[in-house]
Amino acid sequence: MRFYDCSTAPSPRRVRMLIAEKGLTIETVQVDLAKGEHLTERFHEINPHRTVPVLELDDGTRLLDSNSISLYLDEVFPEPNLLGRDAKERAVIAMWQREMEFNGLMAVAECFRNSAKGFRGRALTGPVDYEQIPALAERGRRRVRCFFADLNRRLEESEFVAGERFTVADITGFISVEFARAIKEAIADDALHLKRWRDEVASRPSARV
Amino acid sequence: MRFYDCSTAPSPRRVRMLIAEKGLTIETVQVDLAKGEHLTERFHEINPHRTVPVLELDDGTRLLDSNSISLYLDEVFPEPNLLGRDAKERAVIAMWQREMEFNGLMAVAECFRNSAKGFRGRALTGPVDYEQIPALAERGRRRVRCFFADLNRRLEESEFVAGERFTVADITGFISVEFARAIKEAIADDALHLKRWRDEVASRPSARV
Repeated sequence: MRFYDCSTAPSPRRVRMLIAEKGLTIETVQVDLAKGEHLTERFHEINPHRTVPVLELDDGTRLLDSNSISLYLDEVFPEPNLLGRDAKERAVIAMWQREMEFNGLMAVAECFRNSAKGFRGRALTGPVDYEQIPALAERGRRRVRCFFADLNRRLEESEFVAGERFTVADITGFISVEFARAIKEAIADDALHLKRWRDEVASRPSARV
Repeated sequence: MRFYDCSTAPSPRRVRMLIAEKGLTIETVQVDLAKGEHLTERFHEINPHRTVPVLELDDGTRLLDSNSISLYLDEVFPEPNLLGRDAKERAVIAMWQREMEFNGLMAVAECFRNSAKGFRGRALTGPVDYEQIPALAERGRRRVRCFFADLNRRLEESEFVAGERFTVADITGFISVEFARAIKEAIADDALHLKRWRDEVASRPSARV
């Protein structure tokens, strides 16, 4: 297997953190997004979407997003389990994982990529160039604030995002909160449950990879 | 089990089509989005996101998006298999399913909800009201055209979206193409592979539910 990573980007960090939780060693290739290495013809052959992460299996099959990669790795390396142990738990974790991604990670990206100077003309990942939309940056920021408030409420009733134990939904949620630093959105002082959970996840060795 | 559906909306149709493929009978409650039944307090208790589909399990657990519902149903009712039979196939189908959803369904929704009069002030699903952004409607339309072209290329090399057999990725892809009628985007005359596949999927009994 070969893992195409970028050490500064949030999406491949979701995979790095899962790999670290499982204690795996996978051959890793750094793709420097800041230098535009994902836009080269060479990388286009690896992933026409021009995004990381990519996991290349030994038979040449390539998985091109962190969700499908996580699904594969959790099944092939089952311990510790991060995506669920039975049909119901798998579905519940998938639901929370999706909520973290849609309302967290994607909302931060919506604000960041539509406002940061470095993304002018590149407001979406992928092969096509799209101009930034300032109103979308504003919408993204509103969505991130709702996400933080919703997540705080969730963590008042539940120790972890998807239930009583640490799962892939915590990885995606944690990285969404971390990524929000890029748009200068921090956890509110009174969001005690969110803060308790963030500190707990941040203390895991996997949070430092 | 109880399935909360809306017969006119694309997201619950993904679940309806999967249920039909499996030949299941599940108690179904219609939630009339046009009448705003999803915005009532009563439905808020069922799903705070105010969206359909919802699948309520017998123990009261509620799954709130079509992906987690599909994951659950495919595992509990395994035949015919629609989400993959081993780790690699499950990951590859999940990858294509995601591509159909992100670049297809969500792109159509981006255009439709940011331009249709009926969605003024409601440009995103969920409990928070967001104004329409005309530039986002334009971006969505560009993305849909790219999606159609990419999908035609994919179907030149592959009989179905995720490989040699019909899977959940075909359901999501097909419904994305159908949903594009709402923004008056049709398959181009020269997109022969996309047309061949669309006609094939449309001929399945599950396409008529």
